[in-house]
This record gives sequence, C-alpha cells and structure tokens, in this order.
Amino acid sequence: MERTRVNYDYQLTKTLALLRNPGLLLASTKANGQSNVMTIGWGSVGVMWARPVFVVMVRPSRYTYEFIEESQAFTVNVPSEAMRSFVGVCGTRSGRDLDKFAAYHVATTPGQMVPAVTIDDCPMVYECRVAHFNDLIPANLRRDIEEASYGGRDYHRFYYGEILGAYAAADY
Amino acid sequence: MERTRVNYDYQLTKTLALLRNPGLLLASTKANGQSNVMTIGWGSVGVMWARPVFVVMVRPSRYTYEFIEESQAFTVNVPSEAMRSFVGVCGTRSGRDLDKFAAYHVATTPGQMVPAVTIDDCPMVYECRVAHFNDLIPANLRRDIEEASYGGRDYHRFYYGEILGAYAAADY
Repeated sequence: MERTRVNYDYQLTKTLALLRNPGLLLASTKANGQSNVMTIGWGSVGVMWARPVFVVMVRPSRYTYEFIEESQAFTVNVPSEAMRSFVGVCGTRSGRDLDKFAAYHVATTPGQMVPAVTIDDCPMVYECRVAHFNDLIPANLRRDIEEASYGGRDYHRFYYGEILGAYAAADY
Repeated sequence: MERTRVNYDYQLTKTLALLRNPGLLLASTKANGQSNVMTIGWGSVGVMWARPVFVVMVRPSRYTYEFIEESQAFTVNVPSEAMRSFVGVCGTRSGRDLDKFAAYHVATTPGQMVPAVTIDDCPMVYECRVAHFNDLIPANLRRDIEEASYGGRDYHRFYYGEILGAYAAADY
C-alpha cells in the first residue's frame, strides 16, 4: 500500500479506537533479518521529552520482547478491516511456533526510519525508536488490576518509542 | 462552564495538540482541601489494563508531586485560548510560593469522580485516579535525552491515571 508521511494528529483518534478493538500490530526485526508481529490492545500515545512517543507494553515471556530488546525499535501497524482475522491470529499464536508473516502471506517492507519491518497492507504505520524503557512495578499497581491482569507474574515492560515517522495511505 | 460527560475520542486530537502548545493544566488536591495546579507539556493518552489512561510525568521537586502522592488522583484540564497567560504562569510559578488559583481568580470545582479539583473555565477535563506509577530509569534513557532534559537529577515519576470521567463543553 502506498503511504506518505503524515503529521498523525488527524489519524490518532482512529488509531486509539482500533487499539481497543480489534488491536494494533506491533512488529519488530532482529539484526539477522528475522521479524515477528504480535497484536497489542494496550498502549498510549503522546509527547515526552518534547518528542512524539508511542508507548507499548510487552511481557518478558513474549517472543517480541527479545526482538525489541535487541533492536530497540518497533513499528505499530494499524490494520485494515480486511486484516481482522490476521489480527486475531497475532494475538493468539507465538512467533516461536509459527512465522506469522510467512504462514499468512502477509508482506512486509523495512521501515524507512527504524530497523523494523512495516506491514504492507496496513493503511497507517508508526515507526518508533526506543527512547526509554521501564517496568511495571507490582507494588505500585492497584490490587484489583494486578489480580485481573497478572496474578503475580510476567509484568510488562514499557517501551517508550520516539515516533520517527508516521505514514498513512492517501485516503486514510 | 457547563460540561457534560463525553467519550473523548473526538476531543483527543485537540487535547494532544494543546499538550504541545501551550500545555495542559494538571490539578490536584490534598485531603485538607488545598489544591495546586501546574502546566504540563509532556504525557500520553491510551488504553492500559483495558482501561482508558492518561499518563502524566511529575518531577519529585514539584509541589504537585506531594499532592498526587497523597491523593493518588489528579485532573487534566484543557485550557481555553483565553487562559493562555494563566497556563504560562502555571508553568513558571510554584504553588509553594503562590496560590495560583487565588492569585489569578481562577475558580475550581471538586471533581465528580476523583478527589481533585477541576478548573471551571476549561472546556474539557479528564478526571483520573492513579492506577500505577513508576519512575524514569536514567540507565534506560537515551543519553541525548538525559542530557537535554535532566542533567543527572530530578527524574520524572510517571503516574498512570485511569480516566474515570471526561467532561466537555457542549460545543467543544
């Protein structure tokens, strides 16, 4: 899909609505060229250190974790309606067991600004370089949320990705 | 100003644009009834733990820090164009030296959902309860950002505020 660089203010509402449902696609790539993708339903967008940022949350158990730890980069890809079933797959299957891109014939292209692939069929992508990361602190989390989302283990790491480029299809 | 509860998807673009310039007003209140306000230019909005969140950053040196530590709540108030000079004041003067609300005759009303005041003249407010907090980790921050924004001290605490209510003026 042809995408051009945008100031994403206008598209952001749509991005956050799709984050809730069905989710966005978090892609990352290792130096050896291997890529992975997972569905994310949680995250935030804003401005930190006078830079645009996309904060994503990744549990250490996820395959994606080792990719971002290595590359310090990721892309957030906003799926089209037609990609709904792929988004479902990427929220349930691990890249350890299955090359999701290959298995579902989903084409990717290297990011323009970061060492991570973008997904060709997505009408909007954010290319991010990690500016900072920190971890969820269980003792500082409301008890009801801890129980509902963690149960004592696999607490998220927060990756604060500086948005180095956002690209959208012409009519998006 | 009369405000009604909104699903803030539509207003969010405006909120993030004003976060950059001139800034938003972060208000908080202690159990003794004392309130304070500071201007913020950094933060993010999204979804975490299946809840809407507004993440704000507060340095330990700020007067606001002790307010949020005590109340675990805050409001983010989106200023009108007419409030631009007050936003400037709240970005430069500390509440330790000056009761900014009183000095500038800025009226407030207790939040509907949280123990923190909202600013009457703001056309849009987010009422937030702290769900989680953690700190900036200097060793995990890109070096250039550390030097530009910190210089070795007063690293931000991140407060993840669950948005319990967002309220906007009818025409906002």
